[in-house]
Amino acid sequence: MNKSTFGKLFTVTTWGESHGKALGAVVDGCPAGLELDESHIQKYLNRRKPGQSRYTTARKEGDQVEILSGVFEGKTTGTPISLMVRNMDQRSGDYGNIAYSYRPGHADFTFDSKYGFRDYRGGGRSSGRETLGRVAAGAVAIKLLEALGISFCTYTKAIGPAEITEFHPEEIENNAFYMPDKKAAEKAGAYLEQCMKEQDSAGGIIECRIKGVPPGLGTPVFEKLDAMLAQAVMSIGAVKGVEIGEGFHVAQMRGSQDNDGFAASEKGIVKTSNHAGGIMGGISDGSEILLRAAVKPTPSVSQPQATVTDKGENISLEIHGRHDPVIVPRAVVVVEAMCALTIADALLGNMCARLDKVQEFYKK
Amino acid sequence: MNKSTFGKLFTVTTWGESHGKALGAVVDGCPAGLELDESHIQKYLNRRKPGQSRYTTARKEGDQVEILSGVFEGKTTGTPISLMVRNMDQRSGDYGNIAYSYRPGHADFTFDSKYGFRDYRGGGRSSGRETLGRVAAGAVAIKLLEALGISFCTYTKAIGPAEITEFHPEEIENNAFYMPDKKAAEKAGAYLEQCMKEQDSAGGIIECRIKGVPPGLGTPVFEKLDAMLAQAVMSIGAVKGVEIGEGFHVAQMRGSQDNDGFAASEKGIVKTSNHAGGIMGGISDGSEILLRAAVKPTPSVSQPQATVTDKGENISLEIHGRHDPVIVPRAVVVVEAMCALTIADALLGNMCARLDKVQEFYKK
Amino acid sequence: MNKSTFGKLFTVTTWGESHGKALGAVVDGCPAGLELDESHIQKYLNRRKPGQSRYTTARKEGDQVEILSGVFEGKTTGTPISLMVRNMDQRSGDYGNIAYSYRPGHADFTFDSKYGFRDYRGGGRSSGRETLGRVAAGAVAIKLLEALGISFCTYTKAIGPAEITEFHPEEIENNAFYMPDKKAAEKAGAYLEQCMKEQDSAGGIIECRIKGVPPGLGTPVFEKLDAMLAQAVMSIGAVKGVEIGEGFHVAQMRGSQDNDGFAASEKGIVKTSNHAGGIMGGISDGSEILLRAAVKPTPSVSQPQATVTDKGENISLEIHGRHDPVIVPRAVVVVEAMCALTIADALLGNMCARLDKVQEFYKK
Amino acid sequence: MNKSTFGKLFTVTTWGESHGKALGAVVDGCPAGLELDESHIQKYLNRRKPGQSRYTTARKEGDQVEILSGVFEGKTTGTPISLMVRNMDQRSGDYGNIAYSYRPGHADFTFDSKYGFRDYRGGGRSSGRETLGRVAAGAVAIKLLEALGISFCTYTKAIGPAEITEFHPEEIENNAFYMPDKKAAEKAGAYLEQCMKEQDSAGGIIECRIKGVPPGLGTPVFEKLDAMLAQAVMSIGAVKGVEIGEGFHVAQMRGSQDNDGFAASEKGIVKTSNHAGGIMGGISDGSEILLRAAVKPTPSVSQPQATVTDKGENISLEIHGRHDPVIVPRAVVVVEAMCALTIADALLGNMCARLDKVQEFYKK
Repeated sequence: MNKSTFGKLFTVTTWGESHGKALGAVVDGCPAGLELDESHIQKYLNRRKPGQSRYTTARKEGDQVEILSGVFEGKTTGTPISLMVRNMDQRSGDYGNIAYSYRPGHADFTFDSKYGFRDYRGGGRSSGRETLGRVAAGAVAIKLLEALGISFCTYTKAIGPAEITEFHPEEIENNAFYMPDKKAAEKAGAYLEQCMKEQDSAGGIIECRIKGVPPGLGTPVFEKLDAMLAQAVMSIGAVKGVEIGEGFHVAQMRGSQDNDGFAASEKGIVKTSNHAGGIMGGISDGSEILLRAAVKPTPSVSQPQATVTDKGENISLEIHGRHDPVIVPRAVVVVEAMCALTIADALLGNMCARLDKVQEFYKK
Repeated sequence: MNKSTFGKLFTVTTWGESHGKALGAVVDGCPAGLELDESHIQKYLNRRKPGQSRYTTARKEGDQVEILSGVFEGKTTGTPISLMVRNMDQRSGDYGNIAYSYRPGHADFTFDSKYGFRDYRGGGRSSGRETLGRVAAGAVAIKLLEALGISFCTYTKAIGPAEITEFHPEEIENNAFYMPDKKAAEKAGAYLEQCMKEQDSAGGIIECRIKGVPPGLGTPVFEKLDAMLAQAVMSIGAVKGVEIGEGFHVAQMRGSQDNDGFAASEKGIVKTSNHAGGIMGGISDGSEILLRAAVKPTPSVSQPQATVTDKGENISLEIHGRHDPVIVPRAVVVVEAMCALTIADALLGNMCARLDKVQEFYKK
Repeated sequence: MNKSTFGKLFTVTTWGESHGKALGAVVDGCPAGLELDESHIQKYLNRRKPGQSRYTTARKEGDQVEILSGVFEGKTTGTPISLMVRNMDQRSGDYGNIAYSYRPGHADFTFDSKYGFRDYRGGGRSSGRETLGRVAAGAVAIKLLEALGISFCTYTKAIGPAEITEFHPEEIENNAFYMPDKKAAEKAGAYLEQCMKEQDSAGGIIECRIKGVPPGLGTPVFEKLDAMLAQAVMSIGAVKGVEIGEGFHVAQMRGSQDNDGFAASEKGIVKTSNHAGGIMGGISDGSEILLRAAVKPTPSVSQPQATVTDKGENISLEIHGRHDPVIVPRAVVVVEAMCALTIADALLGNMCARLDKVQEFYKK
Repeated sequence: MNKSTFGKLFTVTTWGESHGKALGAVVDGCPAGLELDESHIQKYLNRRKPGQSRYTTARKEGDQVEILSGVFEGKTTGTPISLMVRNMDQRSGDYGNIAYSYRPGHADFTFDSKYGFRDYRGGGRSSGRETLGRVAAGAVAIKLLEALGISFCTYTKAIGPAEITEFHPEEIENNAFYMPDKKAAEKAGAYLEQCMKEQDSAGGIIECRIKGVPPGLGTPVFEKLDAMLAQAVMSIGAVKGVEIGEGFHVAQMRGSQDNDGFAASEKGIVKTSNHAGGIMGGISDGSEILLRAAVKPTPSVSQPQATVTDKGENISLEIHGRHDPVIVPRAVVVVEAMCALTIADALLGNMCARLDKVQEFYKK
């Protein structure tokens, strides 16, 4: 792994800060011959875009992606694909009062500890805007995986106490929270109204279902598929937990309950349940992969907070400017992007696991 | 990352299967000059050893470690440290009936899918015994971190419904479950008696507290400390979830509750709470790192289970032989080892983050 | 290593093709606090620029670099530095007749073999223009190394039979070939006139001297400094050989001649000769590093050449358009850039080799 | 890359010092299903063994390899293969007088500079014995490549002025120098007699021919096949230069001479010459790969040499004990091993270059 590079065969290197000139990503290792153009990527970036509801901030982010390399006559060439989005609407003025304070819940203090100074505008590279490069790269991965019959369904499972009790995927795009349950979305709305009244913010849980993943992906022990998914998703800002299948609920279960049995069918061997969430021994088993991420509440709240300046003086900080009361809906597409990047990398990596397959590939 | 290699500067490469000749690890990148001998490592391996209670199986594992390279006159030379443990007491006879079936909850099916065949004895490399190499390597990391004032406290937080309500670290070594709460240990014992009567198994949660980690460790975005810890711990067999600080509980919290404020003190700037679990923006903040792992129940239960042979015939499988009713206590030292390896790697990686520090290092 | 990423701590990821929209590089891991702006980088890019002499082609390449991220208030932040150069003057028309043929000495055939198709315009990513990203990144590395007292002197040692016999570094910038010997430069000029008359091209040798490298850089066995330099320089298109110190001449030497002895001096221990070229056992020894690269003649010559179309039909190909009769002078700054990137990476990697230095770094 | 790990998909991690308990390697990523046992590896280790001629030292190295993991029922399982050789005959007494001096031409000084101290016995990890792990691992790679129709022919091209003028591969095993030319071998013998009389040593050149490599291996720009071969071979102790095809001779050639043309044939498109040495644009072209390595003379000569102790006192050092007057013949199998490891890694890495091939692999 590398600081700003994820993956081994299908890799992405991201760059850019909240208030810098631009943000972007370089995708390397995408197999040649995949149809790709800006529209494929733009539709994913649009799912990041705030301003879609009264619960997301009014920054008009624009965010038009440009493909600068790696595509020729509409197809990937196998060479690095450089993606860029120019920063248009980042008004520095919004952030003036935090240049010299350590905002609670943010990375100001830790960035200063590590680097000696930081780009304080909008959080610099610790800003949620950094995920723009990841989503652009994830869009390329998703396009590749589509060509292999793999699909994603990612949504908000809960915001605060408002949790889905039914699953209607067609509802996901119909509400501001990307929840597949209309009633739950309404409860979430009410909860957030309350939070905003109290100048506060809310957290939640994102769930990602991946269908069509062939068995065999992931390599023990350190490149186990669940381990790579955990790294990928935990690397998203504001994520504080990752679980697969039953996740933390396994602590309460018995072996007889948690085990997935097998049965013969016309389609071959199938699992009779899926408590494992599609991954066993760190390798995909062909059933649906199920992952959840816990997202903390937006740290930037307008309530006064006790903190310090970077010189160590106690102060009371009130953060103004444009901040969402909840991060979760914006993070949904980011979780999907990171899962797609991980699956794409594992998919390519699995091709050389068996001698007979290698020989078949190279037969003259 | 690499399949069997974890880390970038302080790396470990593990090898070995349950019933192979030996298991081991190669630790590379340990700084030169660290005092090291077999006793340092052996004490950690002994914490893996079963046969310590009526709840762990009677396999007499022995497991004596040998240092084969990388140490001269009692100190590490900076060259690779090869550690090996010969397999002594693995009676193949115990596993005869599973050579041709897919055990529910195990990696038999996925290993076959990936490689075309597998070493079925004891689960081969998917066996829990694979962690032996990790623990040996982790012991070297812990020795290094001790020399830098960093210490670990890892224990069982819960087994099934039996969860600790108090924290008495001195109790950890006093019960078979490594629980820092005597009453909770007794409840766990009762719960496991019930499980064993029912020919079943139990899951649980492990918690790890890391003190003395300097601020600044971890590098955004993909080498964030929490992301690397998540990969490290999720790569342990039977782990289905990893969380930091408040973890999944953040979904229920408000920003005002979850944020850690700062205050001035004689020791400099300190946090006024630690909901973040010691990591903010993916970088350590100097306060205690808090991590939890969810461990699923032992898949090998002696109840009959419906499954298939590898030819796709439906069968009912009863697994005999020596199996623990709970994995959690054995995994405690493995979680600690993986956390130590991650912290050691991040510690070395943080040294080149600032130009002034690099110049200081190289001043003539 | 990775396909388009070089380095482990100080890394560069390059992207871009000859006729794509832009080319660039992402430099990651540059320590925070280094002064950097476009001018530092532009001066190195200008050394790539053709049109400087009658021996280099008339493409007006412009090549203005833009820093898109990673720098704040004139200093690097420690986050990825994205560098970009827009392609301005690439007239597709020049390349029309090679879309369907395999040019001898070029990578057309191998790119087709690997990817199934290729961006044929100007050679796509196999074009010499790809080095633009490397030079931009190398400029950042050079700036860092300057701050640590390390300097480079890279020049043409020979073009065809015209080889330098004296060494006057001040002459390097005074002739079109970057040769530190005026007479040799004149001979090279005469040789190239002859080549051009014959519609042919010439090869040569580049030499790089690196002063001020502290001892200890490079890590046995696979990250030995000479091994990394070899990879770095051999990865430059048209390079067919790399040697250190005496290089291939060692085959003719005796041990007593090749060995560098040591002697005591007021400055401490010094070597009494430097046949090794500054690297012993794969680790820098503090004396001047000496490296040479062999550069083949420009493959694009206008003489008719026997080759095939990509359908396998025999043809005679005459390549027209703008092509240099010699690559060597343009490659000088690329060799320097790759050496700088390698040294920078090794310099950062050496900081964690000793426990006492690690403890010193982290003392509270 | 990593300090002691080479490769990305087919990787080897080596460990061990000259006088430590053992040496070995862990091979990871070898596809499952390859037949492998100790005999395959032992025959390569035997080619390292000294005592085969009066020109190689009399240390009876034994060197029996043991496979500790990764093989089941005679076939690789796809899990790490641990190889070990116990050190039997390393008499510490031979090295007593060098514990405190810096031997000219050796890595004593640089190891001390880097690590602060060193295992001085036999050169520790800088010893030629370190290559034992590489050769064992290379043997596994060669076995894999055999199964894919790829073969190696590696031999000594020159020792001092004695250079081969004919090429008779069947002669290679018939003389002590692994030269494919009987007359040249006799001249080499005479030259070495002279060197030994003068208490001196000789250098030489090794050449490696690789047949049957499919086109397409290697990935621009930093994983170009020639760049990886250069790193691999330059990492071998005593190697000071690496070249491909015409190598440094390209400096003297014209483009019209150096270019390889193409022609149509019944077998498809073939090259009409092979000045490139089988690699164009960093990618294999299907023709024979040709590589050469320059090996310096053995640094340990018994002539008195002026040097210093590690305290900086001037001394005259006479090195006694068992030392070869030439390294070249022992390095032949090491060069072959490193080339095999590189080709194996590139072979696996090329499988995911094209979308259509990936889709074919995963078609249900």
